[in-house]
Amino acid sequence: MLLVDDINAITQFIIELEKLKNVERRIKPVGLERYENSAEHSWHIALLALTLSRYAPQAVDELKVVTMLLLHDIVEIDTGDKFAYDANHDDFANEHQAALRLFALLPESLGRKFLLLWEEFEQAQSPEAQFAKAIDRLMPVLQNLHNGCQSWLAHDISVKQILSKNAAIEQANPQLWQWLKEQVIEKAKLVGLKTE
Amino acid sequence: MLLVDDINAITQFIIELEKLKNVERRIKPVGLERYENSAEHSWHIALLALTLSRYAPQAVDELKVVTMLLLHDIVEIDTGDKFAYDANHDDFANEHQAALRLFALLPESLGRKFLLLWEEFEQAQSPEAQFAKAIDRLMPVLQNLHNGCQSWLAHDISVKQILSKNAAIEQANPQLWQWLKEQVIEKAKLVGLKTE
Repeated sequence: MLLVDDINAITQFIIELEKLKNVERRIKPVGLERYENSAEHSWHIALLALTLSRYAPQAVDELKVVTMLLLHDIVEIDTGDKFAYDANHDDFANEHQAALRLFALLPESLGRKFLLLWEEFEQAQSPEAQFAKAIDRLMPVLQNLHNGCQSWLAHDISVKQILSKNAAIEQANPQLWQWLKEQVIEKAKLVGLKTE
Repeated sequence: MLLVDDINAITQFIIELEKLKNVERRIKPVGLERYENSAEHSWHIALLALTLSRYAPQAVDELKVVTMLLLHDIVEIDTGDKFAYDANHDDFANEHQAALRLFALLPESLGRKFLLLWEEFEQAQSPEAQFAKAIDRLMPVLQNLHNGCQSWLAHDISVKQILSKNAAIEQANPQLWQWLKEQVIEKAKLVGLKTE
């Protein structure tokens, strides 16, 4: 039974989420001149997870992975997007505040469930959180490999930084990480990224 | 074991999906001046489904619902978005062609799984498909209720059309549909939508 209070709470949360469509990332989708927003990015990584989950070395609960990926960036409504290569990338305290605010909009048990999933993702300990984190890292690497290394060039990122920052992809799939490293090194030469 | 052929296939599919970020809908997200794209819309309805699934009158497999919602609009990469109130809204033949093309990019068993889910959504017979369809309808109604009825006014949609076109929302949740009808009638008076 859905009560009017629950309808109002859910509607308020859902309309608040509109703001994520206005949070700009540092990367441009392949073929587009504008920057990507965090809402469409979240859609994309949820589907990327669903294409790779069957190949994961450790079995993962797909619903949990997808829910984490759909939710994990909504804190950027309050904090903005953090570029993976920035020194202040780790902004857990502020992001946790945002998570508390946003999930408190929902009916209590639903908000608590989502908050726990958000925290589990951030802690990166469970197989699902590790897989989801790897997928979130993988997406911009694939995009850079197909958009002329746009965000790497724009921010003067080195091959060493790319390989170090994204090493967790190996946890989602060792063969994929092996392939990806070769692709990165090859593309980096073509576009003239620095090595260190 | 993930083979290089599979990596190439999945990457090609995922990069092709970038195009959905450039498919424009008729509605503007609440608070934004630009039109919504189908990728960010797909993210939003997947989360809307996850907030309402526990209240569904008939139990639904959440992973199936969410996967359907993340996938269902990708055919618009080939066909463009169809406005729900347009006479030519039903474009199944062209959309099915697009689905066949897109899912054929993937490793075979994965592509077949996604195609079956896409077809199940379109057929609107299973509890999951009916719930997912209702959620897809619900989102623009909620957005119109919070953005001054922007897409209804822009296309001169009547209250009668809104209530008729969205009646399937009742299948996802009867209490929600009851509440929504009252909200639509009230807002329609405020902004001066025609009744018939």
